Amino acid sequence: MTSVVAVVGGGQLARMMAPAATALGVHLRVLVEAPDAAAARVVPDAPVGHASSPDDVARLVAGPPAADVLTFEHEHVPADVLARVLADGVPVRPAPEALRHAQDKVVMRRRLAGLGVPVPRWAPVAEVADLERFLAEGGGTAVVKTARGGYDGKGVRVVTGADEVVDWLAAAADGGPDVLVEERVPFVRELAVLLARRPSGEVRCWPVVETVQRDGVCAEVVAPAPGLDPAVARAAVDAAVRVAEGLDVTGVLAVEMFEVAGADGAPGGVLVNELAMRPHNSGHWTIDGAVTSQFEQHLRAVLDLPLGDPSARDPWTVMVNVLGSTHERLIDALPAVLAADPGVRVHLYGKQIRPGRKLGHVTVTGEDLDALRARARAAAARLQGAG
Amino acid sequence: MTSVVAVVGGGQLARMMAPAATALGVHLRVLVEAPDAAAARVVPDAPVGHASSPDDVARLVAGPPAADVLTFEHEHVPADVLARVLADGVPVRPAPEALRHAQDKVVMRRRLAGLGVPVPRWAPVAEVADLERFLAEGGGTAVVKTARGGYDGKGVRVVTGADEVVDWLAAAADGGPDVLVEERVPFVRELAVLLARRPSGEVRCWPVVETVQRDGVCAEVVAPAPGLDPAVARAAVDAAVRVAEGLDVTGVLAVEMFEVAGADGAPGGVLVNELAMRPHNSGHWTIDGAVTSQFEQHLRAVLDLPLGDPSARDPWTVMVNVLGSTHERLIDALPAVLAADPGVRVHLYGKQIRPGRKLGHVTVTGEDLDALRARARAAAARLQGAG
Repeated sequence: MTSVVAVVGGGQLARMMAPAATALGVHLRVLVEAPDAAAARVVPDAPVGHASSPDDVARLVAGPPAADVLTFEHEHVPADVLARVLADGVPVRPAPEALRHAQDKVVMRRRLAGLGVPVPRWAPVAEVADLERFLAEGGGTAVVKTARGGYDGKGVRVVTGADEVVDWLAAAADGGPDVLVEERVPFVRELAVLLARRPSGEVRCWPVVETVQRDGVCAEVVAPAPGLDPAVARAAVDAAVRVAEGLDVTGVLAVEMFEVAGADGAPGGVLVNELAMRPHNSGHWTIDGAVTSQFEQHLRAVLDLPLGDPSARDPWTVMVNVLGSTHERLIDALPAVLAADPGVRVHLYGKQIRPGRKLGHVTVTGEDLDALRARARAAAARLQGAG
Repeated sequence: MTSVVAVVGGGQLARMMAPAATALGVHLRVLVEAPDAAAARVVPDAPVGHASSPDDVARLVAGPPAADVLTFEHEHVPADVLARVLADGVPVRPAPEALRHAQDKVVMRRRLAGLGVPVPRWAPVAEVADLERFLAEGGGTAVVKTARGGYDGKGVRVVTGADEVVDWLAAAADGGPDVLVEERVPFVRELAVLLARRPSGEVRCWPVVETVQRDGVCAEVVAPAPGLDPAVARAAVDAAVRVAEGLDVTGVLAVEMFEVAGADGAPGGVLVNELAMRPHNSGHWTIDGAVTSQFEQHLRAVLDLPLGDPSARDPWTVMVNVLGSTHERLIDALPAVLAADPGVRVHLYGKQIRPGRKLGHVTVTGEDLDALRARARAAAARLQGAG
């Protein structure tokens, strides 16, 4: 008998926990959406069920063998489902009190401001007038988001008028997700801080990374963020640790940020954009690029085991996502990808190919950042079948 | 649909193929000895069966989905079982013609001598007189082995008289495994060369490693072999490549060798001791220490995919086996092991604890070999519960 970790969600994040669980000798049990889910292909006996079903999640946790802890690969688990697991005496990590800040952007923005964490100027939007006022005060353009259910660019619109989000406002009035508006931050670039925290309080941060988004979807990550001002790096880590400790997060926490320029040549800073309380795309580089991967660290953290060294193994690591593919099967592209670059690390998720879908990622590590970026992009392009 | 690799044997070697298959998006199907086999815990839908059963192996290969190739984590698969798979049109890699050299030490020794590969002085033993003659000519002590079925020190005896192996000779006369005798080589140390070869002929060698055996069982591996004379390294690699090409091996090949001193200060050399045509304990360091692990490389090789870079990622990697444990569950030792060394990489196999059994291994990488050795030994000792 060994430790048993129950995971809600059967996508690539749960799938990539499997190798880490194998190494640690931890039993992983994953609630998958369908028998052919990404994680179901690599984790034995994955029960099929819904994250919003108290019975399905209770069965996941009950086993046999009974789970030692419940955790997640996504935040979309209702509070009543988690309450039942807690009532059954099984720890939920991150706890529902922390998780709700990753579930609801209005709750999150309010709390972060209270913790003194720098965030973009924002306001809740209950009616059209709220949004019109914000637009008038802020230069006529703003970013409107639904408080819940968004991911990969969904639930986010850049708007110049309230008429562009009447559907969301109507839905909110009808009991749907709340709506908020925030300034369109004139950022230098996007950064992410990934850390892990265990119940006993130990926190370990990976190096601050630069993330490149395209159409609201993470496309590329460079670790560490090139040429980052040490003061900005400290501000980024400080903000992330403040979030982790302030919200009592356990497991992996990803904090997405904007790097902003300082006024009149003063040092710049960061504004926190989004949170994720689970392994995150901005941390996929850690599998090949760090001493301890985010997937192993997440398992260690939720089991309250001592955390591993998050140091980078090489001066630079570049991760590029494979977003969609014109190949019939990704494996058909492997001969060309692997022949072109014997050092590239390929990670495929076993998912059905659909346009723009995250189907895998590639990672390269080394000393010459420009060369690494070119190699990683070339490998991803070959898998996508671009051109 | 993706590529499907069928594997005979459900121990730790098949288990450690699973993370590599997950990354490549390859479907792994493993024939396990029991439902709680090491690999069955981490590979979905592993059929239970016997490597010596033609029906069980045929079912493993038939699927659905049908396997693209059959490979192994051990050599104990009868030729008729493999012939049936080949007759069904599924490639077997390594092919039976190659594999029999890893199955039978008499066949292997004969063939290697024919290929000009340096081997210890040896002779087949059909009757007591053969052994007595060898002992008389060789100083009175020799090593007697059964040609088949030995592993981890089993099937090997250091003898000074024929009376010490009468049981084996009787068994051989009765249709059991043949018996051979070889000189007790006065070696400097033991080395291993690990390589992979794909059907198209591409060969990639990892750095030559030093292996330390205790009681005939691999205890420790250092990569690369410290202070190795470049001429000896070349001789070692040359011998291994000659074996791979001469026997038309596909997949990973491990060649265990003795490093021997040269006469009168002349450069030393190597004598080939054993072969394994599969991932091997001497290559576990590659998971954390090389760009491409032996498990991924084996899958790539048997699928005839281009091979990955086998370079070491750090100046030194030390791997130490966990052999038995006084803990009730290995996971109980993890808090102390991980707290003591945040950089140690732990690999547990999910096996029942038995004295001396290979239950896992630990790996550390870095620049200070003495410190790495101490760290790896300390972590393994904590898992073993020594002291």
